[in-house]
Amino acid sequence: MIYLDNSATTKPYKEVLSSFITINEKHFGNPSSLHEMGTTASLLLEKAREQAALILGVKSDEMIFTSGGTESNNSAIKGIAEANRYKGRHIITTDIEHPSVYNTVKELETKGFRVSFLKVNQEGIISLEELKRLLTSETILVSIMHVNNEVGSIQPIQEAGKIIKEKSKAVFHVDAIQSFGKVPILIENSSIDSLSLSAHKFHGMKGNGLLYMKKNLLFTPQLSGGSQERGIRSGTENVGGAVSTAKAMRMTMENMHSQNLNQHRSRLVHFFASRPEVKLVSPQQEGAPHIVNVTVPGLKGEVIVHALEQEGIFISTTSACSSKKAQISKTILAMGFSEKDARGSVRISMSHLTEPAEIDRLLEAWRKVIPPLLKGIKRNEV
Amino acid sequence: MIYLDNSATTKPYKEVLSSFITINEKHFGNPSSLHEMGTTASLLLEKAREQAALILGVKSDEMIFTSGGTESNNSAIKGIAEANRYKGRHIITTDIEHPSVYNTVKELETKGFRVSFLKVNQEGIISLEELKRLLTSETILVSIMHVNNEVGSIQPIQEAGKIIKEKSKAVFHVDAIQSFGKVPILIENSSIDSLSLSAHKFHGMKGNGLLYMKKNLLFTPQLSGGSQERGIRSGTENVGGAVSTAKAMRMTMENMHSQNLNQHRSRLVHFFASRPEVKLVSPQQEGAPHIVNVTVPGLKGEVIVHALEQEGIFISTTSACSSKKAQISKTILAMGFSEKDARGSVRISMSHLTEPAEIDRLLEAWRKVIPPLLKGIKRNEV
Repeated sequence: MIYLDNSATTKPYKEVLSSFITINEKHFGNPSSLHEMGTTASLLLEKAREQAALILGVKSDEMIFTSGGTESNNSAIKGIAEANRYKGRHIITTDIEHPSVYNTVKELETKGFRVSFLKVNQEGIISLEELKRLLTSETILVSIMHVNNEVGSIQPIQEAGKIIKEKSKAVFHVDAIQSFGKVPILIENSSIDSLSLSAHKFHGMKGNGLLYMKKNLLFTPQLSGGSQERGIRSGTENVGGAVSTAKAMRMTMENMHSQNLNQHRSRLVHFFASRPEVKLVSPQQEGAPHIVNVTVPGLKGEVIVHALEQEGIFISTTSACSSKKAQISKTILAMGFSEKDARGSVRISMSHLTEPAEIDRLLEAWRKVIPPLLKGIKRNEV
Repeated sequence: MIYLDNSATTKPYKEVLSSFITINEKHFGNPSSLHEMGTTASLLLEKAREQAALILGVKSDEMIFTSGGTESNNSAIKGIAEANRYKGRHIITTDIEHPSVYNTVKELETKGFRVSFLKVNQEGIISLEELKRLLTSETILVSIMHVNNEVGSIQPIQEAGKIIKEKSKAVFHVDAIQSFGKVPILIENSSIDSLSLSAHKFHGMKGNGLLYMKKNLLFTPQLSGGSQERGIRSGTENVGGAVSTAKAMRMTMENMHSQNLNQHRSRLVHFFASRPEVKLVSPQQEGAPHIVNVTVPGLKGEVIVHALEQEGIFISTTSACSSKKAQISKTILAMGFSEKDARGSVRISMSHLTEPAEIDRLLEAWRKVIPPLLKGIKRNEV
């Protein structure tokens, strides 16, 4: 089995699972309990928080453990919008956000907020000029994803942050769920006020996320209760999840500078350039190293996915979140591709654990199974 | 180590951890992915949902997996209130709810909802007469906990449900987080519309909860995104968490009818009745079998907790969620106890895994360490 759907989810590291088990077997106390079982759990949780903070270059009391990327994005966007609604009602985001951002701002639209969507160019990149034009004194929040989950385009986060702070008082949220461990991001001394991560995208476990929240940010908590996580996120802390997430972060960062991913991406881009049936959807040069999105106009993405599956290779149509709904990718349309192009698109997403031999197998399988599918179509069209 | 703080959290079953690991090692796919890894994950998730539904006697599409009890309570209460706000703005709950309900309705108070709190008697039980009086045509939601987390009082859920449906069109939410596996609750053919569970309270894992939502209930989802869980709870599903939660439910139910807990409770109640320094806070007869709350007026709960900890026995002051804040228990005050009584209260909370010998050790340790503490106080008072 060759797994090339790492942007949907990754296989947890063995060491991550074993940390999780150790905590759940030996240190299962509730961090809020006064006795030693509680104190130990609390210490382990705070150590995990410090490790996570150190990796991101932030203070440990700026790190919140959540149940995943969707909760991190929802909490940040709703919590910031709600707390700042008396200062203004304008939100800016992009045309190509993940549904956990897009549907959240659409929901806020029904609650009296006005949302502007930044367009992207053919490479899937926003225009900083448009951002400048859209910012007003009413803008309270700008949410921009770092790396797009479907095509891997990388947004100019640092420059966008500078513009946001120069031109407005808006809070700047970054969805870094697809970028962590693949494309570096600097939070320290940047203009980023909050940032979301999801553990299962970097060989941690599902059900675990992180939210960086700059100290003293105006924020309305979205989960009420026992006031855990400095009151920002109530609920008994998932200590095993937090410890294993910090471990997955560390292991991922240790592997970040391997050249694997860049080499795989170059090979794929080069290979697809030579295929007459294929159009590259991902940016040619500057995309994230782990995502290559291509389209075979005339085929459906699902057909390509299933054909490669017969060869033991698992890839995806656009994002996992929308694959079952067979929707046409909003992102790919926003980049100026046609509906036909968007329907034929597939995403190959790698991890630093992907081996060169796995890429060999993909190329071989592609050559074998894709051209016959097209022949079938041409015959039908005649 | 004798762990008698099972209402704060429980030790996960070995089998629960091993299911979790198997899923995360072998079936780590994203249930939304189109390929076989996704399909397998999706099948496992739906099987877990069916198992959970079967145990609760509900339909499988009425079960939502969440990140824990706090999320379940928040989602249900906010989601129901928001969706029904044009029908009325009145909510009824009790004086003794867990913070994940209490703080959620307090938050709704700031958003234009009116909240009535049902009083409790000395046994910690609400009055059905008062419930009848408070229900109006404006009441859209009633939230009542089944078993209180601090003292173990059991509310008359079935009768309350009948009254709610006779006298109003309100939705009935039940927080069953402390009762599952200890005090039976019938959902089928009852008036319960939604119900919360938390896995780590019944030897499942932290970070996992369940929400029963009756079909066709008017509800506004609280997490926007990829529309997982029938659109009610977006976010990549924690398949391993769901499978292990269903397993923990099954194992807990298999053990529910053991008489262990009732026997332990009787012994404790009998023992404390013989101790001149102790007042029973939990109901004498009808309380939940796993919780015994007592007070030693004149001592502080923390002092008792730490004295017993020296003997290797872990209990708690009231609930874990408020123990670190050293607040006086709202619940115990609501039951008519004095501040002094409330300050001296501790909670002994058992599981069906608690052994008779562990209760022996607790009684022995109590006799040894508590009277000397009181002597110290009397001497100081002279």
